[in-house]
Amino acid sequence: MRRRFDREPCSIARSLEILGDWWTLLIIRDAFLGVRRFVDFAQRLGISKNILTRRLAHLTAHGVLVAVDAGVHGPRYEYELTAKGKDLFTAITVLRQWGDRWVFGPGHEPLLVIDRRTGRPLPRVRVLGEDGQPVPREAMAVVPGPRLSAARAPAASKPRRRARAS
Amino acid sequence: MRRRFDREPCSIARSLEILGDWWTLLIIRDAFLGVRRFVDFAQRLGISKNILTRRLAHLTAHGVLVAVDAGVHGPRYEYELTAKGKDLFTAITVLRQWGDRWVFGPGHEPLLVIDRRTGRPLPRVRVLGEDGQPVPREAMAVVPGPRLSAARAPAASKPRRRARAS
Repeated sequence: MRRRFDREPCSIARSLEILGDWWTLLIIRDAFLGVRRFVDFAQRLGISKNILTRRLAHLTAHGVLVAVDAGVHGPRYEYELTAKGKDLFTAITVLRQWGDRWVFGPGHEPLLVIDRRTGRPLPRVRVLGEDGQPVPREAMAVVPGPRLSAARAPAASKPRRRARAS
Repeated sequence: MRRRFDREPCSIARSLEILGDWWTLLIIRDAFLGVRRFVDFAQRLGISKNILTRRLAHLTAHGVLVAVDAGVHGPRYEYELTAKGKDLFTAITVLRQWGDRWVFGPGHEPLLVIDRRTGRPLPRVRVLGEDGQPVPREAMAVVPGPRLSAARAPAASKPRRRARAS
């Protein structure tokens, strides 16, 4: 049933073949490339209409895409990325770059995203600190964020045994 | 059959609930958090042993994890991220930050990754140009990379109709 992408010259498809389910992010990839119409998504992805309908409804329900009526003689919907969807650009870029490095290898990238101003490929996306420099792994720590801290607050506010020192 | 993550206080889980399959990247997330043993992955993820076995084998076959025999009284395997696996840190970080912004919202992040040197959360990962500044969308262009160009070379080298001008 699953269409396999392991021969596709697309680093995103190949990264997702390794990393998990792919339809959803591939729909988003195509939306970034300007695809808007159901028939165009269906043709480009070689996806069954059933599955595509479900995924588009899923992405629309989650506010990643919005369906816009572009019909002249009756309704015809096109799908646009919302702000939430456009904000996946970094994720798509990172997945593509990962696939470029590890699936195809340097010098064998199927696609390049270039900066028109320099004519050169976008540099690798990195996790940087506030000073704009890469953060060494040992300098990072995972801590509970506000949501988990709030959830734990009631327990923390219970009376606790007094410390021994006065 | 699918365990749903839509109530989990983890932005990565929630992003993947929206974006597609999740087990694979959640195994990698846990590996980044120091999980190494089969039983620990199984317990943390609440995943069936069958599925976990399959996914670990998949990730090992793709060189994302490596199985290391850590047994004293007979073999016992632990799973470590390879260089290829560690290089997913940026992808995991971007997915977490996306979920932080769009699923939980600012001020409600379940976890924060901080820079110990400043005590503050890592800044948002961005696609930057060679000058270290964000690249405007209109300055980006998608072009065929070396792999696609090479694949097209034989066709391009066929004799073509001569241009009209001499």
